[in-house]
Amino acid sequence: MDTNNKNHHFLSALNFKKTPYTPVWIMRQAGRYLPEYRQIREKAGSFMSLCTTPELACEVTLQPLKRFDLDAAILFSDILTIPDAMGLGLYFIEGEGPKFKKPINSIKDIEKLPIIDVEDKLKYVMDAVRLIRGELNNKTPLIGFSGSPWTLSTYMIEGQSSRDFAKTKKMLYNEPKSLHLLLEKLSTIVAEYLNCQIKNGAQAVQIFDTWGGVLSPDMYDEFSLPYMAKIIKKIKDKNPTIPIIIFSKNVKISQRQINTGCNAIGLDWTSDIKEARTFANDKVALQGNLDPAILYADESVIEKEVSRVLEQYGTGEGHIFNLGHGITPEVDPDKLKFLVDTVHNLSAKYHS
Amino acid sequence: MDTNNKNHHFLSALNFKKTPYTPVWIMRQAGRYLPEYRQIREKAGSFMSLCTTPELACEVTLQPLKRFDLDAAILFSDILTIPDAMGLGLYFIEGEGPKFKKPINSIKDIEKLPIIDVEDKLKYVMDAVRLIRGELNNKTPLIGFSGSPWTLSTYMIEGQSSRDFAKTKKMLYNEPKSLHLLLEKLSTIVAEYLNCQIKNGAQAVQIFDTWGGVLSPDMYDEFSLPYMAKIIKKIKDKNPTIPIIIFSKNVKISQRQINTGCNAIGLDWTSDIKEARTFANDKVALQGNLDPAILYADESVIEKEVSRVLEQYGTGEGHIFNLGHGITPEVDPDKLKFLVDTVHNLSAKYHS
Repeated sequence: MDTNNKNHHFLSALNFKKTPYTPVWIMRQAGRYLPEYRQIREKAGSFMSLCTTPELACEVTLQPLKRFDLDAAILFSDILTIPDAMGLGLYFIEGEGPKFKKPINSIKDIEKLPIIDVEDKLKYVMDAVRLIRGELNNKTPLIGFSGSPWTLSTYMIEGQSSRDFAKTKKMLYNEPKSLHLLLEKLSTIVAEYLNCQIKNGAQAVQIFDTWGGVLSPDMYDEFSLPYMAKIIKKIKDKNPTIPIIIFSKNVKISQRQINTGCNAIGLDWTSDIKEARTFANDKVALQGNLDPAILYADESVIEKEVSRVLEQYGTGEGHIFNLGHGITPEVDPDKLKFLVDTVHNLSAKYHS
Repeated sequence: MDTNNKNHHFLSALNFKKTPYTPVWIMRQAGRYLPEYRQIREKAGSFMSLCTTPELACEVTLQPLKRFDLDAAILFSDILTIPDAMGLGLYFIEGEGPKFKKPINSIKDIEKLPIIDVEDKLKYVMDAVRLIRGELNNKTPLIGFSGSPWTLSTYMIEGQSSRDFAKTKKMLYNEPKSLHLLLEKLSTIVAEYLNCQIKNGAQAVQIFDTWGGVLSPDMYDEFSLPYMAKIIKKIKDKNPTIPIIIFSKNVKISQRQINTGCNAIGLDWTSDIKEARTFANDKVALQGNLDPAILYADESVIEKEVSRVLEQYGTGEGHIFNLGHGITPEVDPDKLKFLVDTVHNLSAKYHS
């Protein structure tokens, strides 16, 4: 542990070390709900130019830390930088979300996909990581991240966001070997990508499995979790002390998740964090799990609901406070300030 | 039990009576995936004219039963007929889903909402029920249905479908009393609506709580489940022998659900039906829970996955086979034929 790090509570919590209060960060904390983000986003011209310009990615990453007493920074980037670097041609249409010019249609497309050199092809990400880490100057830890292979594969096969994931599931059921090949390639690249972020300064990493919950439990255990497990192993081989968080939205905590060797499991608000803690028995830390919509409520309600989550987790270490999904663009930033301060104030008694 | 009813396996399963095979029906079985549906829909001019013209609603309800060996018919209608009859002005824009001209914005809007006389305002539904029941001639049982108060309230407050239910949740957190008043009114109307469907011939009813799963477990237990429980009580008071199915998508089975007095709980494919049965201990029947996307797969895969669900449920009565959500418009009808026949063929051994 770097002793110059003035706030290492986030890393401590991941390691079940004593903290004075429950650390908190917020998924998508650098984002559209901040007017200063919208301003720089407009100047940059496009979302992708924010991601690919290290100085801008750095500036945007640090914006929420200037306003709020957050316990971690998270690299500003997009999970789809990897498929883009693999040649799928990522583009954005305002109001429609991300799209790919060349989605995956067949086993041939998958066979042709290159195992890219992330240090070269995603140099802009690594430059951003180094820049952010320098700016943070050990005051706050930096989280790196990637999408999970399953979640990335859904975008690569559908060519865009989806409601029912028809194409991906068609491949899953009819050509499981093709999908496994794609997931295998992605897990190799994601592991390299995260190891490279760590080499450049990331002090913890999170794997976002946003669409893990659209699978049945059996299919999740076959097509999503094992590839996250492979990534975790490859990271732990190179970087045994770096904490790894996995977050499969709408997936119930399981022994199989714990067995991956991850340090923490992210929970959305449809999970009961009390039950999850009993189940996990402090073998992994838990991150979450306030309904993001609570940020539309009045302060008294936010306080009540923060208090409820803290009480449900209970006494002791291993809890990182977060929302159960990303903060939404319509939220008033002052509400987030209130949330962060409330977490710090109300949680002290659980750490005494 | 009507002894002229040639296929009462669906009703038997709901009552844990012996059946020769596992009965099956499919959510949205009368729908866009059928060319004969699309034809009549085009002739009718609009989706709502299908719902409001009893002869057309009847014809569409019966279409899938002509093709497939289904064990139940379900009234063709829409869950939003109730808010429409309450004066919100339902309309549809092609490709955008349902919308309301006058969504709920305040407690005043809620106070003004009338407790409608469903027999009068939704006469077209009751006429359709009688017509369908007559045509079915006791060969196949008829299911009536309604949306749950919570699910209806989301459409009424948002004015349309939603991704994050910001307005509804804002009311939930900031003005819970207003939302409770709305849910109370809706539960009174829904109970009347279902009792009236039963009076006109529905032999079982299902409450669709499509959006129950966007709530945290605590909020589900406060804002969705109690109102379904009230409806169940009001139905059981008048119609004690009519089986009632509740289906909250993305909600894990709970003792509280069982305590409502419902006869069956619908499960989506993210639930483990084996675990659910162990939990329910045959106190309620279970309905589900194949991933609808499996209908995009080849027959061999459909057979494997049907077999898996049947095996997970195991031996004995109390299982109604269904998808975990509605069938999607792109499915080939022959795949559904294969599914239905496969359920019947493979399930016999679990009932011997």
